[in-house]
Amino acid sequence: MSPIFEPTLLLNESVCKANIKRMAERVKGWNGDFRPHFKTHQSARIAEWFREQGIERITVSSFKMARYFAQNAWKDITVAITATQIDAASINTLAAKINLNIVVEEEQTIMALERGLQHPVGVFVKVDTGYHRTGVDADDLIKIKKMLSGLRETKKLIFIGFLTHAGNTYGTRNKVQISEIVEPALQKFLALKTFLKDHFPLMQLSWGDTPSCSVYSDFYGVDEFRPGNFVFYDCMQVQIGACQLSDIAVCLAAPVIAVHPQRNEIVVHAGAVHLSKEGLELADGSTTYGSVVKLNGRDWDSEQVLGQVRSLSQEHGIISVSKQVMPTLKPGDVVGVLPVHSCLTANLMKQFLSTDGNFIEMMK
Amino acid sequence: MSPIFEPTLLLNESVCKANIKRMAERVKGWNGDFRPHFKTHQSARIAEWFREQGIERITVSSFKMARYFAQNAWKDITVAITATQIDAASINTLAAKINLNIVVEEEQTIMALERGLQHPVGVFVKVDTGYHRTGVDADDLIKIKKMLSGLRETKKLIFIGFLTHAGNTYGTRNKVQISEIVEPALQKFLALKTFLKDHFPLMQLSWGDTPSCSVYSDFYGVDEFRPGNFVFYDCMQVQIGACQLSDIAVCLAAPVIAVHPQRNEIVVHAGAVHLSKEGLELADGSTTYGSVVKLNGRDWDSEQVLGQVRSLSQEHGIISVSKQVMPTLKPGDVVGVLPVHSCLTANLMKQFLSTDGNFIEMMK
Repeated sequence: MSPIFEPTLLLNESVCKANIKRMAERVKGWNGDFRPHFKTHQSARIAEWFREQGIERITVSSFKMARYFAQNAWKDITVAITATQIDAASINTLAAKINLNIVVEEEQTIMALERGLQHPVGVFVKVDTGYHRTGVDADDLIKIKKMLSGLRETKKLIFIGFLTHAGNTYGTRNKVQISEIVEPALQKFLALKTFLKDHFPLMQLSWGDTPSCSVYSDFYGVDEFRPGNFVFYDCMQVQIGACQLSDIAVCLAAPVIAVHPQRNEIVVHAGAVHLSKEGLELADGSTTYGSVVKLNGRDWDSEQVLGQVRSLSQEHGIISVSKQVMPTLKPGDVVGVLPVHSCLTANLMKQFLSTDGNFIEMMK
Repeated sequence: MSPIFEPTLLLNESVCKANIKRMAERVKGWNGDFRPHFKTHQSARIAEWFREQGIERITVSSFKMARYFAQNAWKDITVAITATQIDAASINTLAAKINLNIVVEEEQTIMALERGLQHPVGVFVKVDTGYHRTGVDADDLIKIKKMLSGLRETKKLIFIGFLTHAGNTYGTRNKVQISEIVEPALQKFLALKTFLKDHFPLMQLSWGDTPSCSVYSDFYGVDEFRPGNFVFYDCMQVQIGACQLSDIAVCLAAPVIAVHPQRNEIVVHAGAVHLSKEGLELADGSTTYGSVVKLNGRDWDSEQVLGQVRSLSQEHGIISVSKQVMPTLKPGDVVGVLPVHSCLTANLMKQFLSTDGNFIEMMK
């Protein structure tokens, strides 16, 4: 086994495949369609593990990512970032080859794209059910009905339904708090079906976010689910209560470059360009940039948390450890860091090393 | 001119070259050697703009980056991250071809590398002059003398001098505060020469960091300077007082995807995977992830700040704007975002588009 000598993103294939299988089964249990978000792994190889579970339809977060997965034989893709008229060329290239869905939230975008498109595309109207990032307010039936009248006139834009992302679940810390966000959001979302089903009987409702899909279950009336982060999970999802530490499928191998026993700190080669600067406030009010665990070759022991990453610069991470852990670490050792936000860490590392020693590539 | 339709990192070549020239002249004014840090741009093409200023010696922050620049004809490289014995193979590959300097801070690393190396390398001992990230405490003459005795015995490790990085200048907000950090740090640093010059008359002192090199001038006794960020500067450096807004050489072009006049917000396709999650506390106590400016084609007007990026998710940025600015922006427009930390933004984008329309590649 070749030793690890630089920051390397390890991937436990069994844990990852178990995460995929579990979520696929949950969605099946709700009689829902599973259209997983591929923005977390961004990898054609890992995508095939979804195909093994019967998944053919996917979600991505940019047209660039859609092009990558289309090149890798994915034929049914929703680009879940709001499209505008400047995306016409991207849409035309993709829609010539695959079944493409886009997301809109402005009436003028609908008209502009109808003029600019060469092929039919499916259209979701993005609605805001409480997160307040993007989307038409789900209560704003006047605006929504105006957009739907617009979509009745279009030949290239085919209305499919509504899409929402309750991203405010990321601020929660337990199942009760998740329910408190999900229930009113679902109520607003499902009301769209009630109000509009006479005119649009085939309307689909598409729901996102890993926290709610991991712990909530009463999704009656929702047609499609687009969680993404669950493929790897991370420390943030552990704190939300969406998973256990042992469900985290990725871990950054980080060489120890210095030890400072006088301040119970070790310094690793693992910085903002590897982990990202996403921090997480712990229960004690302190901030972590990753939980440090013991590595066993290319695998890690999530039960043995050695410390927390307390600060990051470009290439360095400073880890605080206990007096007991301090003497067990020395320069030249390699420790593991469970990321706070695996989507951002994977996006930075651009490659995984599986626990059985294979490099797995991502979109470049 | 082909329109911008996705997040694109613009680079103003004239501003960038002026930044390089100004810093090269400052260092010349101190009779110092300029060994700029290339971690900010990570680009062989931009590196050539340094060569035009007569620069032949450079600094990088990882062995991976050293391999990239060695492949691009740089023959004298300091890897300014503390090396340990697990770097022996990387050092051997590089030192066979180029003049390589490494940085150490542990006696046992010196002994282990002496056994593992095949070629001579220059060695800087990293000293901590107040930043408390890595390095031997500059006051700890006992440890330093032990390391130097070790280095007297080695045949592959050739002692060059001491290297420090006063990274705590990044917490400052004006020239006076920078001086308050730099002066005691320099005093500790220069004392090493005083104490050890009899035994090591050729000893070099190597100093880092953009804030101090941009505004401080009294570096008598320091031999070499390694600032890096100045090549692009960024909003953080503006707030520190190291540069003006008009000195920032990079700007992220960000498509507007939604407008929310009811909350004076616009949403752009520019998220944590483009800008990084580095935040900056402004004078009013609020946090920004980038200053939003008006784009003119591929150039921008740094005098016209339209708003601040207030939050980031993976692909989205939420920008707060004034009531006056709000009606001037619509979906499909493209705005500019001056990054908080250009090193991290460039590292994520992996490519620049120069204002005259050429793509400039970086290390992949």
